[in-house]
Amino acid sequence: MQHRLYIVGAGPGDPDLLTIKAHRVLMQADVVLYDALLGKQILEMLPESCEKVYVGKTYKDQQDQIKRMCRINALMKKGVEEGKRVVRLKTGDPLIFGRGIEEVRFLRNEKIDYELVPGITAGIAAANHCQIPITERSINRTLLFCTGTTLNGDMKQFDAVSTMIQIGTPVMIYMGLNNLGSIIDKLIDNGVKADTSICAISKVSYPDEKMLFGNLSNFMSKLEQNPLEMPTILVIGENIMPMLEEADELLNQCKCTDCK
Amino acid sequence: MQHRLYIVGAGPGDPDLLTIKAHRVLMQADVVLYDALLGKQILEMLPESCEKVYVGKTYKDQQDQIKRMCRINALMKKGVEEGKRVVRLKTGDPLIFGRGIEEVRFLRNEKIDYELVPGITAGIAAANHCQIPITERSINRTLLFCTGTTLNGDMKQFDAVSTMIQIGTPVMIYMGLNNLGSIIDKLIDNGVKADTSICAISKVSYPDEKMLFGNLSNFMSKLEQNPLEMPTILVIGENIMPMLEEADELLNQCKCTDCK
Repeated sequence: MQHRLYIVGAGPGDPDLLTIKAHRVLMQADVVLYDALLGKQILEMLPESCEKVYVGKTYKDQQDQIKRMCRINALMKKGVEEGKRVVRLKTGDPLIFGRGIEEVRFLRNEKIDYELVPGITAGIAAANHCQIPITERSINRTLLFCTGTTLNGDMKQFDAVSTMIQIGTPVMIYMGLNNLGSIIDKLIDNGVKADTSICAISKVSYPDEKMLFGNLSNFMSKLEQNPLEMPTILVIGENIMPMLEEADELLNQCKCTDCK
Repeated sequence: MQHRLYIVGAGPGDPDLLTIKAHRVLMQADVVLYDALLGKQILEMLPESCEKVYVGKTYKDQQDQIKRMCRINALMKKGVEEGKRVVRLKTGDPLIFGRGIEEVRFLRNEKIDYELVPGITAGIAAANHCQIPITERSINRTLLFCTGTTLNGDMKQFDAVSTMIQIGTPVMIYMGLNNLGSIIDKLIDNGVKADTSICAISKVSYPDEKMLFGNLSNFMSKLEQNPLEMPTILVIGENIMPMLEEADELLNQCKCTDCK
């Protein structure tokens, strides 16, 4: 480890999707500060000598976010001051809806030397796993990422999202499962066609990854019959039909060893 | 290797940014079909026994694209039929402007068993390397990827891109360097502010990675004085100021060993 502190993207969950760099940095770490959604298998492969500190939050856990960020910042600073090799391990990529930049600001302010290591973001991994055409020559020239949950709960961003869907852009929504009914209503109110495809991929790259496919008008009832666990990536667009024999069949084909 | 054919994302260039899975699959490959932009170092680390076949294209090399795709498809099929372990290695991620889905269609049609392995896409790696805020709580809730070069040369997509920039969305443009003058003109014609920030990152993750920062009105003259090599990622948006002491200073600070 060249630096004293690394902000590392862990990828969606499967340790196989760590980068070689992330893996090397983790294997040399004295302290790892990790998030709620971090893959259990990644945690288990860390050296025994490495101190693992949970600094995550879960949906609606009522944590004070400011206090949480302050604690993370203090732990990063303390670790470095004690001469430890510190890794701040974030699910996916540090800069994709992961508040990595807030931590960078703190480190710069404190003059702590650091490096950012990119990770596979869940949306792109989901597209690969489920073979969803997210960009395609002469068809999709744009691809939009957005959050489904915002601090103040406003839905204004979905006006622009609606326009993008209408011109053929696939939209990947992170953290949108709990808000999906309102998102679909808003899209349809804005004139997005009710038969626009939607694909939800739960627990991307985990052994129990699941996929559910439908369209805006039938998806909420499909979801009611087949609840999905968080985290879930939503992909919405005209051209995002997964290239699998029968998209729906994948659902409930749990691949975890416990079910066999 | 569980499958006979893997479509693998190689990441932006640095072998350290391969995933563990991509690395393992490559080390076991009998044949690797690779693109023009593939990192030389990745090619060098392949086993000597592995047959390395160049199937790339470079900007304006006048290749017939249909013939090129047919050749790639034929090579994939031939390798599998000969009982070889074949890797189709694509720069970045297979599904981000990389025509991976076209190859998936061929393989499905031929009933050839395959798997897609995601890779770090250059835009996200660039943001991490140059510490560019591409998503930020309460500021950027959306992030747009687009191509700068289209098959028929039309610029229609930049109408929607302009709107997204105007609502505060950072836009990452792939393959846009040669077309940048027209892109900037189109954005300004559409009412995007001339002082909107633009950051160009050339050869992301290579030892000679370079960055140039400016705004829409002064960028073309900066670029003329400081030409950048392809491939280059462009990031345009109101809030994409790189978090580096002096963004411009990075320019020409080549990190390759040849310069030292």
